[in-house]
Parts: sequence; structure tokens; C-alpha cells
Amino acid sequence: MACPNPKRVCIIGSGNWGSAIAKIVGSNAVKSKNFDEKVTMYVYEEIINGKKLTEIINETHENVKYLPGHKLPANVVAVPDVVDAAKDADILIFVVPHQFIRTICSTLLGKIKATAIALSLIKGFDTAEGGGIDLISHIITRHLKIPCSVLMGANLANEVADEMFCETTIGCKDASAGPLLREIIQTSYFRVVVVDDEDTVEICGALKNIVACGAGFVDGLGLGDNTKAAVIRLGLMEMVKFVDVFYPGGKLSTFFESCGVADLITTCYGGRNRKVSEAFVKTGKSIKELENELLNGQKLQGPFTAEEVNFMLRNKGMEEKFPLFTAIHKICTGVKTPLDFIDCIRNHPEHIYIPVHIGFQ
Amino acid sequence: MACPNPKRVCIIGSGNWGSAIAKIVGSNAVKSKNFDEKVTMYVYEEIINGKKLTEIINETHENVKYLPGHKLPANVVAVPDVVDAAKDADILIFVVPHQFIRTICSTLLGKIKATAIALSLIKGFDTAEGGGIDLISHIITRHLKIPCSVLMGANLANEVADEMFCETTIGCKDASAGPLLREIIQTSYFRVVVVDDEDTVEICGALKNIVACGAGFVDGLGLGDNTKAAVIRLGLMEMVKFVDVFYPGGKLSTFFESCGVADLITTCYGGRNRKVSEAFVKTGKSIKELENELLNGQKLQGPFTAEEVNFMLRNKGMEEKFPLFTAIHKICTGVKTPLDFIDCIRNHPEHIYIPVHIGFQ
Repeated sequence: MACPNPKRVCIIGSGNWGSAIAKIVGSNAVKSKNFDEKVTMYVYEEIINGKKLTEIINETHENVKYLPGHKLPANVVAVPDVVDAAKDADILIFVVPHQFIRTICSTLLGKIKATAIALSLIKGFDTAEGGGIDLISHIITRHLKIPCSVLMGANLANEVADEMFCETTIGCKDASAGPLLREIIQTSYFRVVVVDDEDTVEICGALKNIVACGAGFVDGLGLGDNTKAAVIRLGLMEMVKFVDVFYPGGKLSTFFESCGVADLITTCYGGRNRKVSEAFVKTGKSIKELENELLNGQKLQGPFTAEEVNFMLRNKGMEEKFPLFTAIHKICTGVKTPLDFIDCIRNHPEHIYIPVHIGFQ
Repeated sequence: MACPNPKRVCIIGSGNWGSAIAKIVGSNAVKSKNFDEKVTMYVYEEIINGKKLTEIINETHENVKYLPGHKLPANVVAVPDVVDAAKDADILIFVVPHQFIRTICSTLLGKIKATAIALSLIKGFDTAEGGGIDLISHIITRHLKIPCSVLMGANLANEVADEMFCETTIGCKDASAGPLLREIIQTSYFRVVVVDDEDTVEICGALKNIVACGAGFVDGLGLGDNTKAAVIRLGLMEMVKFVDVFYPGGKLSTFFESCGVADLITTCYGGRNRKVSEAFVKTGKSIKELENELLNGQKLQGPFTAEEVNFMLRNKGMEEKFPLFTAIHKICTGVKTPLDFIDCIRNHPEHIYIPVHIGFQ
């Protein structure tokens, strides 16, 4: 049955992950009568071999810079102006590096539909005024006055583009928006679970990077599988406790979703936070030096998140209740050495008390 | 303060894991006044280079066959007769291959202290009469009429013997026995969390081997990190659901302990169930052939557990609610091919319903 009011979708962002999602969204928009076929994609304009990237994408249907080797559906239209791309959209999918989100929001303010809804695929926190963390979805809602759901999971972009089977989690409080978001995202190889626990879903996507640094230290120290599993588990427990303390009302079951345990596992076995942290132990170089050497100067997410989280823990006098997060921050900043790591977590509160997760449902 | 009534501990079993635990228990028994110094260890007698294994252990304090290179404390005494070893014990630690447990119990019946308590370190189910599974701790309690707690976790024996940091979980319903069991097991490198959810702890230790077969299929098929994480997560969800259906009253939080997510991770990345299942896909040989080639004819735990679990699921008409467990069983037995694996789980109930874990606290 034709939908009287097909929804228009705009993807804001066109990097590796944004392009992989554009492939899915474009294909689903064609298949379902609930969506307008045309999907706009905001592309930050760049010149590639003398030609504009938006023109290349619209002519060849390939993002030659960020997702080479994969065709985007022809109904995905690259647009170099974010307001042009977004102004008629009913669903705005945000997938830009998190440091650009405030600028983009202020550009879009007042230029989008008042009834639009947002979906953020952006992993990582922003820094709140005065320190501590600010969730990206909260920033979007605050600036644009529209509800913002989130999508997180064990989703390496290239594997998604290759159509390898995986799962993802959408955190969406609005029971009517959930099915719509699932419909535009789900495919036979990209399976969606919708939960209403938005904040927990988003927080998992950032905190896992701290834990991955710990996993990297274990690898760098040459410790075994048992130790690595213990560090990952203790990290998961601190993620649970962090949500309980700072974002009460979360559900324990959310940590079992793809955004929780699955994304944590892949990040702690693959992933660059793990890799750089291993090199940190083995080479004795600083995180900053390694960022320059291994990441072209890009900031590593884990140490940055560890710092913001540590600010919040110190403010509450709770560093000791999060010994793993605290140790990782202190090691990354040179206050402690990697050799101290295991000693810092030997007397983890988890080992002293029988855990009771009072705040959780 | 001296304890008026120091507890005597007997370890029943002296393989790789039994010997690693004997090292810990012997050392703790010396340190704490709550325990008699002498720890007996039942050793199935073997002749090594013309000499009895018990004699070698008691003279050299090394289990040269099953844990070479590690000294046992001198207060651990190897005993070739299980009744002699166990008759005066207050705490019986069972750590033998599961197929021997019924015979040992019938040998011990009526020969042990009526007030003794048991702790089972045995991973894997036994087959119940008429099919389906029987928990080892239940067998011990039924046969010996004593309470039986369990210990499970991400605990590769050699790493524990090397004193690498790790965690473990004790499932113990008896609030007075819990601290005692923790005291005899915990060290600065082997950290214990006690939970009261005994059955769930034990079931995790067996079901993880089914999931590890799935992880091995993914590796054998050359699929990516996303897919492997999805299979591990869906496996975890089926473990949760299995407990909910067949052993109601379990707690979701138990799956966050070392016995749950941590042991599952190590088993799905290392571990022989994963390895043999990968070879199963790559070589096209049967599980039985691979058991002969790679395991000297020993039975692989995962396919065996998958079969017993499948019997229970079929009996309840619930195969479709456990598509991952079901697919793994059918692939191991040749009813389906590894190439069918992902198709079997594309429409997992997890992807259709928003999961609500009604049975869990």
C-alpha cells in the first residue's frame, strides 16, 4: 500500500561509515513506499584529482575517497550544502566526526522541518561546558529542538559495505519512530534491534574505547587470555556502573545488545585504541607521539574519553569505584606506568562485594 | 585468631586444572588458620618412566605429567585412593573429567563426612537418563547428599599456574559457605566473585562451547569481526534464554560475571571448540575425523553439548526459538552445511522482537 506521506531521508556525513550507511538507506528507500526514493547526502566538498567529490559521487555513484570499490544506489544524491541537503528531510541521519556537530547544528537551526527526527551514528562524547561529557544526541536535540535517536553496534564500516552479516542497536524512546528507523536501516545482512534506552546505547559506544586501551595494555604487556578477558569484563562492569551513577534509569539488558558486549569485544580485539595502546606499552612513546606516527595526528578516542570521564569521577569523589577507568587515564597521561595497570585493578570493588545492581531494571 | 575447627580440604582430580588449583589451595591452606594445612589430592595412579605418579608428586612436588614446570606446595599430598583422600575432608573440590563423576560419587557414597560440602570445577554437562542434560553439581548432590557449589570462569589452567591475573566466579547458594570457599580459592592474582545463582554459573560453563563452534564456523568461512561479534552475542542471548526456559530463577547479572561473558569471549577467540570448528569448515572433514586427528580421539565438548541441548529443545518444540544452537547442532551432524549457518540466524527472534527478559530479576 502506498504511503500517503513518504518520508524524506537526509544523511549528514559521507565518510567511511556514512557512505556504508548511504548504501543501505538508499537501497531501502527504493524498496519501501514509506520513504521518498531520493536520499540526500551532505558531502563536505573536496577536490579529488581536479574534480569535486560531489560531482564524482553523483556521476559514478561511488565515494572514491572514503568508500572506494562500492557503488551507492543512484537515488543517493550528494549535496555540498548541508542546508540544501537537510531542509526537506523528515529523517536526519547524523554521521560526521563529533567535533563538527555543534557547527552543523548551528548552521541547520531554523532551516529544517520542525517535525523532523534525528538519528545519530556518531560514536564518542563531546566535552560539556566546564568539563565532563555531553552526549551527541543531547547536543542535537538541544540545538535543533528535535528528538534524536542513536544507532551503535559492532559495525566496522567496510564489512557492512561488503554486506557481511552483523547486528546493530537503535536506541529510540519514541515507540512510533522506532519501526520507521528500523525499516530504513535493516537489511538481510544488517539486523536491527530497537531498544528504548537511548542514553545507554550511546554511552556504550564511547566508553568501550576506554576499555579497549586496557585491552591494548594487556596485549602490550604480553599477559594472557585470562587477563584480557578479566579486563574486558571489569571494563564492562564499570560501563554498567557509570550509566547507573550518571545516567540512572538504564537497563542492564541494553549491555547485552550489539552496542554493548558485541561492540566491546570487536573493539578490544581489533580496533585502533587497542592497537595504539599496545604500541604505547611496547615502544614507551607517549600517546601524542603515537597519534602523530600512527594516526596522522588524529586524536585517539579512548584516552580523550578517559580524561573526560575522569573529570566526572573526580568531581564526585568516585575514582576508587572505577579503578580500571581511573588507571587507564593515569597511564595514558603518564601519572602511572603500564606496569602498574594490573595492580590497580587487583582489589576492584567487583571482587570485594557481591554486586547488586540496584539502579537497574 | 586460631580457628577451633580448621577445615580439611581434598581435591579430587589432578589433571592440568586440578593441579593448578592445588597450587592455589595448598598455598591458601598454609596461610589461613581456618584450614588444616594438609591438603589431600586424589591422583588417578599412573606409571611415569617406571615410577608411580603419586610418588613423583609427593617427592618432587610437581605433577610432571599434567602441570610440568610448576611446584605444588609441599602440604599438598597426592593420594591414589579416592576414599582415603576424601574421607576426613570438610571441603571436597571436584575437578575430574565429567564422565568419571558418577563412578567417583558411588565410590565415595557413605565414606565421607555427612557435613562435608562440595565445590565442582567440572565444566560440561552429563547426559540425563532418557536424554537431555544433567548438571554435574546436581549429580554430586543427588549421589552424595551434600551441597555442591560450582566454580567457573575464564581460567586457562596454565595461565593460572603462571599466576597471571584473572577472575573466576563461585556459584554458592549457602551464604555461610561462600566466604569459606572464596578464602580457600582467592589469591592476589586469582580474584573471586561469589554469586548465589549456582545453576546459571554452571550452565554458562557448558553452553559457551556450543557458541564457540559458531565462532569457529565464522572463522572458517572467512567472515569478518562484525559477524563474529554478532554470533557471540546471539549465542549469549540464547544462553540467557536457555536458563530462563529450563532453569528459571536465574539472574541476568550472572552472565556479566567471569563465568559468563569473560569465559565466552576467551573460548570464542582461543579454545579448541573454536579451532576444531574452523578446521571443520576449511577441511570438510567430519567432527569425528577431526577429533581423531586433532584431539587424539577425545570428544569435542561443543558438538556433544549441542546434541543434548537440541534434544531438550526438540522435546519442548523450541528449536526455532534457539536458531543458533539449532543450526550449530545440525551443521555438526551434517544435516546442514556451514554455508547455511548465517542464513539460519538472519531472522533470529532477537531481531524481530524487542527483547523482554521476563523471567529474570
